[in-house]
Amino acid sequence: MPFTFPVSSRFGPQPADPVGDLFSVLSRGDIISFAGGIPDGALFAFDDLRSSFEHVLAHQARRALQYGATPGEPELREAAAALVARDLPTTPDQIQVTSGSQEGIYLAAQALLSPGDVVLVEEPTYLAAVQAFMLGGARLVGVEADAEGMLPDALASAIAEHGAKVVYLIPTFANPSGKTMGRQRREQIAAVLLGTDVALIEDDPYGRLRFSGEPVAPIAALPGMAERTILLNSMSKVMAPGLRIGWMRVEGALRQILGIAKSAVTLQSPALNQLAVAHYLTHHDLDAHIASVVGPYRERRDALHAGLMAMLPATASVTRPDGGMFCWVRLGDDTDTAQLLPIAVEEGVAFVPGWSFYAADPDRSTMRLSYATNSPEMIAEGLRRLASALGR
Amino acid sequence: MPFTFPVSSRFGPQPADPVGDLFSVLSRGDIISFAGGIPDGALFAFDDLRSSFEHVLAHQARRALQYGATPGEPELREAAAALVARDLPTTPDQIQVTSGSQEGIYLAAQALLSPGDVVLVEEPTYLAAVQAFMLGGARLVGVEADAEGMLPDALASAIAEHGAKVVYLIPTFANPSGKTMGRQRREQIAAVLLGTDVALIEDDPYGRLRFSGEPVAPIAALPGMAERTILLNSMSKVMAPGLRIGWMRVEGALRQILGIAKSAVTLQSPALNQLAVAHYLTHHDLDAHIASVVGPYRERRDALHAGLMAMLPATASVTRPDGGMFCWVRLGDDTDTAQLLPIAVEEGVAFVPGWSFYAADPDRSTMRLSYATNSPEMIAEGLRRLASALGR
Repeated sequence: MPFTFPVSSRFGPQPADPVGDLFSVLSRGDIISFAGGIPDGALFAFDDLRSSFEHVLAHQARRALQYGATPGEPELREAAAALVARDLPTTPDQIQVTSGSQEGIYLAAQALLSPGDVVLVEEPTYLAAVQAFMLGGARLVGVEADAEGMLPDALASAIAEHGAKVVYLIPTFANPSGKTMGRQRREQIAAVLLGTDVALIEDDPYGRLRFSGEPVAPIAALPGMAERTILLNSMSKVMAPGLRIGWMRVEGALRQILGIAKSAVTLQSPALNQLAVAHYLTHHDLDAHIASVVGPYRERRDALHAGLMAMLPATASVTRPDGGMFCWVRLGDDTDTAQLLPIAVEEGVAFVPGWSFYAADPDRSTMRLSYATNSPEMIAEGLRRLASALGR
Repeated sequence: MPFTFPVSSRFGPQPADPVGDLFSVLSRGDIISFAGGIPDGALFAFDDLRSSFEHVLAHQARRALQYGATPGEPELREAAAALVARDLPTTPDQIQVTSGSQEGIYLAAQALLSPGDVVLVEEPTYLAAVQAFMLGGARLVGVEADAEGMLPDALASAIAEHGAKVVYLIPTFANPSGKTMGRQRREQIAAVLLGTDVALIEDDPYGRLRFSGEPVAPIAALPGMAERTILLNSMSKVMAPGLRIGWMRVEGALRQILGIAKSAVTLQSPALNQLAVAHYLTHHDLDAHIASVVGPYRERRDALHAGLMAMLPATASVTRPDGGMFCWVRLGDDTDTAQLLPIAVEEGVAFVPGWSFYAADPDRSTMRLSYATNSPEMIAEGLRRLASALGR
C-alpha cells in the first residue's frame, strides 16, 4: 500500500492555494492580466539596485554571504528606522527585518495569537494574510466597511461580541479594495482600540506609492497607538519584490518573541539583500524613484477606472484609489466572478475573483483588478475582452 | 496603564532564545568562539558568487527583482533536482525552494503535524529544529542514540509507545553531535519506519562537507523510503548562508500543502538569490569548491579533537566527525556547562552548552564545539582558555 503523508489539521480537507493558483494563471503569455499584485518590472531602478549589490559584493562580501543576527543587519535597521521616523519616532532596535511584509504578518500572527483567538479583519481583506492567520489557528471575523474601510462602530461591536485579540488593517490603498482611511477615520479606529486590550497589526506595503490626494500618517503614529501596534513595511512595491525585504516596527518586549519566531521560521533574512537595500536607501534616492514611477501608475489607474465605469452596468461600483495597485469591482448582480474567470481566461483576460478575500460570507459578484503592469492601451484591450466575457 | 501585547500560548512563560543568544555572544571580538554553527567566511567562493550575481543582474534582472512562483525558479529547481539525483531519482517538480533548510524544517512541521502530535528526535538534536517543532505545537520525544545516532530498537519502542507521526533525523554529520549513521544503521532505521505510517524528515545540510570516510546515501534513497521522506538540503554550509537558499525534496501531493505553507510564511524565496545560485550550480564547480575547503576543515577537526582528548579528564568523551562542523563533548561528571559558559567567556572562549539540544532530560555536562572558523593555532589557544575555565 502506498504511503500517505499525514497532513496537519491546520489545512482543511480540500486545501486551496489561491496565491499559487494566481501565479500559475499569470504565467500564460497571451493573457492580459489584471490579476497580479505585482509592480511593473519595467519601472525597477535597475542601475541603482545593480550598483548597490555590486558595492556590497565588492566591499562587504564576507558579511553579506555569512549568517547574521536574527533582528537584521544594523545598517538596514537604521535606514528602516529613519524611514518610519518620518511619521513616528523610531529607533533601530524597534525594527525586525522580515522576508517581505508577508513574513511580518505571519510572525505577528504566531507571536500574538493562540489557537482559537479572534482576529478582526476588514471585509474584504488581503488573502495571504487570511492564510497566515488561519495557519496560526486563529478565528477570522470580518468587520463591515464603507468607502474608507473598516467602520469604527462595527469594530467596537465586533470586539465586544467576539473578545478579539487583534485587528488587522491595511489603512492605505488596501489590498484588494484600494480604499484609504482618512485621518478622521483613523482617529475613530484608534479611539475604539485605546479603550480595549486589542492589538493592531497595521500593514502598510503600499503607503508610499501615492499618486493623488494628501498623505496620511499611519494609525501607529496617532497618540497612544505606537505601543499597541505592529507596523509592517515592505520594499516589494516601492523597490523590488524579488529582494524579499521588509520590516516590522514594534515597541517593547514583543520584539524578542518575534525574534524567536523569526529564528524558527527562517533564522534571518539574507544578509546580502539586507545590505544591498541599506546601501540603496543611504546612497540612492527612493523618493525620487517613487516620484518617477507614480506617473505611469496614475495614468493606468485612470485608464482602468474610467474604462470600468464606462463598461459596467449601473448596478456595479468601482473604487478609485489614490495609490497602490488595485481597483475593486462589485458587480452587484448575481454574477459569480469565480465562474466568470474561466470564461474571461478564454477571452484572454484575467482578474482575481473576490470571494477569496473574505473571511466569511463572500460577495461573489466582486473582483480585484490591478492596473499596475499594463499600459493604458493594454488596459483598454483587456476591458474589451472582459466585456466579451461578461456578455457570454 | 501601559498596553501589553498578548503573547501566543506557543511561547512558554519565559521564552528562551538560544539561537539569538548565541549570535550575541559571537559578536564580541576578543572571544575565541567554538559556539557558532557557521562556515568559515574566508573560504567562500567570492569570485564565482560575485560573477553569478553580476550575470543575473545584467541578464535576468527583471525576473530576478520580481515576484516569482511559490515552488521556486525553474532553473534552481532543475539544478537542485540534478544534485539530489546523484543519490535518488528526482524531478524538478519534486523540489520546493526554501530560505535555508531552517524554513524547510518549519514548513515540514507545519504541513505534517497537528497540535499535540509527536515528533521523535535523536537526543541531542538541532536546537532550532526543536524550536520549529515546538512552535508548530508538536510534542517532542527524545530517542536514545549511540555513536552512530538513533538506535533502531529505541525508535521502534518510541513509535509504539507514543504513536509518533514524524521522525526528524540528521543522519550525516549531525548537529550538534557530529555523528554519522553508517549504511547498515540507515537500513535498520528504514526497516523500522517501513512497517509503520511514520514520515521521515531527513535534514542533510552538511552531507557534502565530508573530509574523511566513505560517502553514504541519504535514508531517502533506500528502497521504499523516498515516498515517506521529506529530504532537506541547504546551500548554507557548502556555498554561503547569507543567500538563505535551500530546498526540500518531496513526492506526491504533499508538495502542494508545503507550497500553501510557504505562501503564507514568505510567499517565495528571493528570485535574485535563486537565479544566482542556479547560475553558480550550472556555470561553476561546487564539487571543486567543496574539495578546496574540506582540507582546512579536516585540519581543524584534527586540532580540536586531539586537543580536547589531551585536555579533558578520562571521564569525558569527544566525537570525531568525518565532516560537518561539530565535536560533541560529554564531560561525564557533575559539571553544568551552562554555568561553565560565563566563566569561559571571562577567559575569552565560547561554546554552546549542551542542554538546549535536548527535547527533555538534558545531560548538562555536554557542550557543542565547532572547529569550522578557527585555525589550529586559535583552536589551541581556545582550548588553553577552556582549560583555565574548567580549572576554576
